[in-house]
Amino acid sequence: MGKLLVVGSVALDSVKTPFGEVTEALGGSATFFCTAASYFADIQLIAVVGEDFPSEHLAVLKRDRVDLNGLERRPGQTFRWRGEYSHKLNEAKTIDTQLNVFETFRPSVPESYRTPEQLFLANIDPELQLMVLEQVQRPSIVALDTMNFWIDGKIEALRKVLRKSDVLIINDGEAQALGGNRNLVQVSRIIRSWGPRTLIIKRGEYGVVMFHDDAVFALPAYPLESLKDPTGAGDSFAGGFMGFLASASVVDEQSFRQAVVYGSVMASFAVQSFSIDRLATLTDQDIKNRYMEFSQLTMFQA
Amino acid sequence: MGKLLVVGSVALDSVKTPFGEVTEALGGSATFFCTAASYFADIQLIAVVGEDFPSEHLAVLKRDRVDLNGLERRPGQTFRWRGEYSHKLNEAKTIDTQLNVFETFRPSVPESYRTPEQLFLANIDPELQLMVLEQVQRPSIVALDTMNFWIDGKIEALRKVLRKSDVLIINDGEAQALGGNRNLVQVSRIIRSWGPRTLIIKRGEYGVVMFHDDAVFALPAYPLESLKDPTGAGDSFAGGFMGFLASASVVDEQSFRQAVVYGSVMASFAVQSFSIDRLATLTDQDIKNRYMEFSQLTMFQA
Repeated sequence: MGKLLVVGSVALDSVKTPFGEVTEALGGSATFFCTAASYFADIQLIAVVGEDFPSEHLAVLKRDRVDLNGLERRPGQTFRWRGEYSHKLNEAKTIDTQLNVFETFRPSVPESYRTPEQLFLANIDPELQLMVLEQVQRPSIVALDTMNFWIDGKIEALRKVLRKSDVLIINDGEAQALGGNRNLVQVSRIIRSWGPRTLIIKRGEYGVVMFHDDAVFALPAYPLESLKDPTGAGDSFAGGFMGFLASASVVDEQSFRQAVVYGSVMASFAVQSFSIDRLATLTDQDIKNRYMEFSQLTMFQA
Repeated sequence: MGKLLVVGSVALDSVKTPFGEVTEALGGSATFFCTAASYFADIQLIAVVGEDFPSEHLAVLKRDRVDLNGLERRPGQTFRWRGEYSHKLNEAKTIDTQLNVFETFRPSVPESYRTPEQLFLANIDPELQLMVLEQVQRPSIVALDTMNFWIDGKIEALRKVLRKSDVLIINDGEAQALGGNRNLVQVSRIIRSWGPRTLIIKRGEYGVVMFHDDAVFALPAYPLESLKDPTGAGDSFAGGFMGFLASASVVDEQSFRQAVVYGSVMASFAVQSFSIDRLATLTDQDIKNRYMEFSQLTMFQA
């Protein structure tokens, strides 16, 4: 089985939601991604933390199938994010962002990481995403996430990354901003003409829609009774999605659909607790059961 | 096959969307409902229009399977609604409402309408909904729609209707207001404790979720490339839903799911034109094809 390489952030998150709050909890895109993906595949992580990064967090990151050789520890403080969610839970209000060691982060891909089977470029500066792409042999699947900040500020670099990518995973507002259009069908045609064969649009509590070749696949989110913190849902989705594809014996239209379901399974667990508390303590049976629940949620007689 | 009785509005709608506008076009909840349902079942309509109601609209309403004996024509003007949609298309801004003959409307159920197999109470004053319920023999399925205006202003009458109902079909904001809670799983438990065994929550462009007995069924909306006017989508959904159930040989969990899909099929056609232009000109094959498209949109390997 091929290796799955991810570059992204490892952070200390202080988050407040209507259901509680945490201070300097383990967070960051790469953290959620790795944790979710590690149930499916072997992961190699490229990220940076500061001298202050607590060793107990390191212990949590050190999962069976996660290779931390690419996790740099550098002088200075770890990346910190502070955010709040209202009752709507669909969008975080950022209270404070301290880039710290992330500010000067230039991803350097260790020798042993340079032939990944698959690559996920989490939501970071597209110029850093390009740097990683240039250091590795072309993987069979390159996927990326991005956000409005880069769409507005670094569109040229982002377009370069898109040209070299297979899958773009973004939320609906970002897709509409990037495609310059409100209609998702039209947006999918525009964005996919720039490179990615697959566009996955995350719609928060409403689920996800995937445009892949000539087909469209839509999956509702799992209706949860108790939901604690949406932070990391998107990266957990990406982790389940890429992790499943890395473990699949055949990569076709059907496995892309299954990957979307596994992504949604992992996102549904991520939001049930703060940080990766729930996500990091699943059994394979938990994952299988939730997958079956998605099947029961959506199936009808054709 | 049993008869499907509907009480609701027949109106003259003036609607502006980013994709065009119409003036005094045929509209109203009962209009969309009847048109959608008439592909599946025989319909009896209770509504009122004024002396000014154009005969060409009457001709359009006079469909093969729609019985218009309960459509009163009374002195005065027809109910008029004027609304606008922004690019988001999810909520109409009402510019003007003229109730006209609807203001003094007291539904009177003709003798031949008093033993309906199924009853749909479209979004009107819950006191009028009660009046209809009192004039008919208990149908096997009573479904209703309502809105924030009645939730805020006539909650007691609405609760009485709910006690006598099987299915409530409302949009997500209304469900949250009625249940006094943001979480749809909790909302479904609260509302269903008041009477309806089934709660169907419409989520506009995101689709629909149904809580039915112990099961949840969620269906995404069909991603349309061209969408003209969302007016009537909800009533077209209800028409397809109730129409299918009226035509089904068995009414069980599976047929409720299929009914949700047929409802979504009819809603997806309704929004592709202004008024009922597209909805009124479908073939059975159009409906079957769109149903299959929903199946292809949502299916994955269990």
